[in-house]
Amino acid sequence: MVKKVSIVGASGYTGGELLRWTLIHPEMEVCQITSERFAGQQAHKLNPNLRGFTKLEFTSVKNLSTDVDAVFLCTPHQKAAPYVSQFWEIGAKIIDLSADFRIHDKEVYAKYYGEHQNPGLLEKAVYGIPELHREEIKKAKLVACGGCLATSIILGLAPLVKNKLIRTDGIIADSKIGSSANGAAFDISTHHPERSGTVRSYKPHGHRHTAEIEQELSAISGGPVSVGMTPHAIEMVRGIMSTIHASLSGKTADVDVWKAYRSFYAGSPFVRLVKDQNTLYRYPEPKPVIGSNFADIGFELDQEKNRIIVMSTIDNLVKGSGGQAIQCFNLMFGLDEKTGLWQPGFHPM
Amino acid sequence: MVKKVSIVGASGYTGGELLRWTLIHPEMEVCQITSERFAGQQAHKLNPNLRGFTKLEFTSVKNLSTDVDAVFLCTPHQKAAPYVSQFWEIGAKIIDLSADFRIHDKEVYAKYYGEHQNPGLLEKAVYGIPELHREEIKKAKLVACGGCLATSIILGLAPLVKNKLIRTDGIIADSKIGSSANGAAFDISTHHPERSGTVRSYKPHGHRHTAEIEQELSAISGGPVSVGMTPHAIEMVRGIMSTIHASLSGKTADVDVWKAYRSFYAGSPFVRLVKDQNTLYRYPEPKPVIGSNFADIGFELDQEKNRIIVMSTIDNLVKGSGGQAIQCFNLMFGLDEKTGLWQPGFHPM
Amino acid sequence: MVKKVSIVGASGYTGGELLRWTLIHPEMEVCQITSERFAGQQAHKLNPNLRGFTKLEFTSVKNLSTDVDAVFLCTPHQKAAPYVSQFWEIGAKIIDLSADFRIHDKEVYAKYYGEHQNPGLLEKAVYGIPELHREEIKKAKLVACGGCLATSIILGLAPLVKNKLIRTDGIIADSKIGSSANGAAFDISTHHPERSGTVRSYKPHGHRHTAEIEQELSAISGGPVSVGMTPHAIEMVRGIMSTIHASLSGKTADVDVWKAYRSFYAGSPFVRLVKDQNTLYRYPEPKPVIGSNFADIGFELDQEKNRIIVMSTIDNLVKGSGGQAIQCFNLMFGLDEKTGLWQPGFHPM
Amino acid sequence: MVKKVSIVGASGYTGGELLRWTLIHPEMEVCQITSERFAGQQAHKLNPNLRGFTKLEFTSVKNLSTDVDAVFLCTPHQKAAPYVSQFWEIGAKIIDLSADFRIHDKEVYAKYYGEHQNPGLLEKAVYGIPELHREEIKKAKLVACGGCLATSIILGLAPLVKNKLIRTDGIIADSKIGSSANGAAFDISTHHPERSGTVRSYKPHGHRHTAEIEQELSAISGGPVSVGMTPHAIEMVRGIMSTIHASLSGKTADVDVWKAYRSFYAGSPFVRLVKDQNTLYRYPEPKPVIGSNFADIGFELDQEKNRIIVMSTIDNLVKGSGGQAIQCFNLMFGLDEKTGLWQPGFHPM
Repeated sequence: MVKKVSIVGASGYTGGELLRWTLIHPEMEVCQITSERFAGQQAHKLNPNLRGFTKLEFTSVKNLSTDVDAVFLCTPHQKAAPYVSQFWEIGAKIIDLSADFRIHDKEVYAKYYGEHQNPGLLEKAVYGIPELHREEIKKAKLVACGGCLATSIILGLAPLVKNKLIRTDGIIADSKIGSSANGAAFDISTHHPERSGTVRSYKPHGHRHTAEIEQELSAISGGPVSVGMTPHAIEMVRGIMSTIHASLSGKTADVDVWKAYRSFYAGSPFVRLVKDQNTLYRYPEPKPVIGSNFADIGFELDQEKNRIIVMSTIDNLVKGSGGQAIQCFNLMFGLDEKTGLWQPGFHPM
Repeated sequence: MVKKVSIVGASGYTGGELLRWTLIHPEMEVCQITSERFAGQQAHKLNPNLRGFTKLEFTSVKNLSTDVDAVFLCTPHQKAAPYVSQFWEIGAKIIDLSADFRIHDKEVYAKYYGEHQNPGLLEKAVYGIPELHREEIKKAKLVACGGCLATSIILGLAPLVKNKLIRTDGIIADSKIGSSANGAAFDISTHHPERSGTVRSYKPHGHRHTAEIEQELSAISGGPVSVGMTPHAIEMVRGIMSTIHASLSGKTADVDVWKAYRSFYAGSPFVRLVKDQNTLYRYPEPKPVIGSNFADIGFELDQEKNRIIVMSTIDNLVKGSGGQAIQCFNLMFGLDEKTGLWQPGFHPM
Repeated sequence: MVKKVSIVGASGYTGGELLRWTLIHPEMEVCQITSERFAGQQAHKLNPNLRGFTKLEFTSVKNLSTDVDAVFLCTPHQKAAPYVSQFWEIGAKIIDLSADFRIHDKEVYAKYYGEHQNPGLLEKAVYGIPELHREEIKKAKLVACGGCLATSIILGLAPLVKNKLIRTDGIIADSKIGSSANGAAFDISTHHPERSGTVRSYKPHGHRHTAEIEQELSAISGGPVSVGMTPHAIEMVRGIMSTIHASLSGKTADVDVWKAYRSFYAGSPFVRLVKDQNTLYRYPEPKPVIGSNFADIGFELDQEKNRIIVMSTIDNLVKGSGGQAIQCFNLMFGLDEKTGLWQPGFHPM
Repeated sequence: MVKKVSIVGASGYTGGELLRWTLIHPEMEVCQITSERFAGQQAHKLNPNLRGFTKLEFTSVKNLSTDVDAVFLCTPHQKAAPYVSQFWEIGAKIIDLSADFRIHDKEVYAKYYGEHQNPGLLEKAVYGIPELHREEIKKAKLVACGGCLATSIILGLAPLVKNKLIRTDGIIADSKIGSSANGAAFDISTHHPERSGTVRSYKPHGHRHTAEIEQELSAISGGPVSVGMTPHAIEMVRGIMSTIHASLSGKTADVDVWKAYRSFYAGSPFVRLVKDQNTLYRYPEPKPVIGSNFADIGFELDQEKNRIIVMSTIDNLVKGSGGQAIQCFNLMFGLDEKTGLWQPGFHPM
């Protein structure tokens, strides 16, 4: 039976992308989309791609109905907690795309985001990368989808950490990211003449996603994992490419790395390993995954310097948020993980 | 019952895009994709987006099977005719994406493309824009899909011509087009440092698509229609925006134009009329249609100068070729026109 | 002797570009740059390219000194008039980059910009395109630089109008323009995810520059000239490409057009005629003029449709504003027109 | 007295850029530009920006005159050696922009480029980054300009290595580079639809520039320095941004790093240190240096992870090749280093 869902905070890019995928999902009916600022306006005014797909209007959260099977929260961080409490009470499944329930440790949360509004629920939340927590997500009432940069970096590193192939200190993740990751709010930094064509290291260290990256990888490792993360805003609307530099923990051959990835991602249809020869696309690149829920992952060993270079790429708005949320929804409701998501990207794009 | 199809000349961008859509079409099975140059290679080597969606390899056309329900021809112009003859004989339905069967008059064809290889079949072909020839396409054995620029211009003008709202002489179509329209073959003009960021009027007049534009519009008008067409290569991979400038034939109000478009495109799900207020996207733009089969059309009347400005936008590889071909396939096989194509674009993209 | 100059309203893109050129001009010393919003901040905070070239800080216009030989006004329209009066009194030469003194007829000004603040000075102002008004500019005390789109269109058409080669009704100028033309103020329409890669007909008709285009061309023609102007925001930071479509007034050969352009632009070093064969750059394109003061102009005759297509391209911030202002300054002070401006663009860019 | 110079191999992007700067240099006269493929064609056919600046035609190297004061070699690697010998004999000064004389150790050269054609001259060559070898360049007869990526990375690291602020093992240089660095030769990898918008790690390790980076930094360090270099082709025509990740060798404060950079680059006008507050451009970015000879360098300390992140950015065709060559020329002929080069970039660009 088709599930009824609502999207809270639907006027941003995450909400808009999620709305796109819900509208073509065969097992979902979107009942409400909320926005204070755009209440009363039709969804396609902000999402011109959806013209003809929905007559939904944004509604104020004051009119939020609880008569749903699931709710997606696309609020800014520090704003999701009240809705989580509200829907938790009535037993609806909650998929939170904000950062509020990603971090299990309230001290760590406080360091990056400020004091938590509802720490009691922190331990109920499952971190929403299905490739790491598939079985828990199936049983979860509250899923906290991973951050977009974090998703690309965690997926690139998890199999290596699990198989002890790399040293867990001194890992560097040098990420490149498109402008849509900033969201729909604008300022001088996103003004086209200033943003276009730039390579801007806007947060050379201390990015908030470090918290969830180190939390998840440390859990896999069984000990502390340290990742120095340096994202760069580059000329791109959608897409993340994380280039991850790590030292090998010992003598390692290509086949060892292959085995680690293959075994970790067996049963994970949205992770594709890319390491071809005789083709232009011998490593992952963002363009072929844009518009899709895939994470493409590849690597190269630099034996001379005893290091590995991992490339991990996703569409920040799909696998990095809206698509990941749908994938979690599917698992939470016992559907095939691929339902409504099994679409290739485009080439050339 | 699922239809078996082949794609001849599948290694170009048109073929690759068509392959993408066939692979997710619920009523189609792709049996063969041909390429001489890439015979023996897997499709995803050229189409990195399709990794995981198919194990098909390119095969030489020498091994082309005729055991199919339909064939898609994605050859260069002057190369399609032999395949048309071959599949015509065996009764398979033929959807030709080349220019070879678009022009009914062999003299006109010769002027733009050289002498025709199989003029006898010209009169059997139906021009493949469903919004103009839906009923004929349903019955056709051979459909010639429209050119990408031509499709955008014809769709923008047809209702105006039909309703005699504009003068049929002196129409100007100033088009802007992405680099994928050049195809997969490269030279200095498509070398990234030279092509990136350019605004290049590569063919200020006499573009080949003029032939089909004037043919189709003249048929609708019942008299000669003259369109001066000036395309520009701009910074964009996918997408066409045709800005069409025409003189009004008499006193005309917005509502007259609306009526013309609405009535012409009633029953055409892939044409969307765009003329909003209070929104950034008040006219058509390419970005919201990229990755979709939509043609978004809008207009503005300049009463002071007694002219109309029409904006018509499509994804050149979808509505302008691969998607149009699928739409024709659906009609030819009695399916809902939207089958396998009913997808919104992306925002922001 | 080096001339002392000030720039009023220097924190926008026009002011910043002008500042760049003044700093490397051998006969100019910049004394003050004003900005209310950024008063007290160093110029290079807004203009990172100028780091190391100046220690100037923005100062409030309240502290504006009149001890200068010339003043450049980069205010928004409707804001320049008081400064014009102030500097007019003291006899400093005034170069106004706003729209306030471009239009000779106060009724026409009012139609596009609102009531004029100082109509008495309108007749004193010389329209600042040197290729049209070189001798008057040499003697002028107040020069009103042309609008960027207007400059590209007027330069493309003036020789044709003067030589009666085209019909003066029904001219269409379809322009493509970069995001810097919007200026430094931002809103959702310039937010990178929305602006990047777009082709947006943001003002299909009635653009303000129509007033000065028709004023200047009508003066050359000796009768009314009508230009329907449709600009498009495309993916580009700098640059304008105006494609101008006009009907020929009679039988015309390439050589007639060549003669018209060559004779009109004899003695105009910053206009280059581009119509090559056997080269990729056979028509004008924006990229080779970006960063320079050149206007590249080319054309093609479409004999079949009795029309001409003119391509005219400039850097909107150089020839379209800051460079044009320097060129006028040079003329006003008896310097070689090329002083401080004789720089090629870059290739590839 | 004006110096006579020639450019061998002038039809590529390096040669074209060099030609641009020589044409506006006050102390230089370009006598010959050679190209086999384009012999007999005017320079502006390949360099549309130079229209009006020169009437020079490409000439075959067979007609190469030795009556010059200096020669610039812009040949591919392995092709420069014969010209070096030829001009060495006659006493002309030689500025080689190829890789052939950058590496002092012929074994190292052979590892990356193949057997050297003229190893006897290797020890005569001075590595051409003026900020490292200014005094030697002044006396040199043969200067080998640094590679573009190498220049950005060496300039970013040299002061840190010299002052022992970082560990010399495990340095990671993650570079982002524009398409012009590939040169004028094209293939599928530079075809616009494939290259546009990509983030392509085309050589994750073992890049040839590693040789000169490690050579120069080891010489400064007095011991081996290891740099793992991973360049990425991104959407950009010009520009390099190298993000360099290194471990601190001890407790280090911002001021220590500032001192190291300030003292190393005292007297180096083309290096600008960028570390601002309260401005969008608080770290280096490529856009403000494009079209100029500047290297903008900034850094951030990550005390928590005991690492430093250095950002170093240049225009690959200016500071990374043509401009660096002019800077060396100036030094070799006793001119002010800034002669003909003292130009800011553009903003916004």
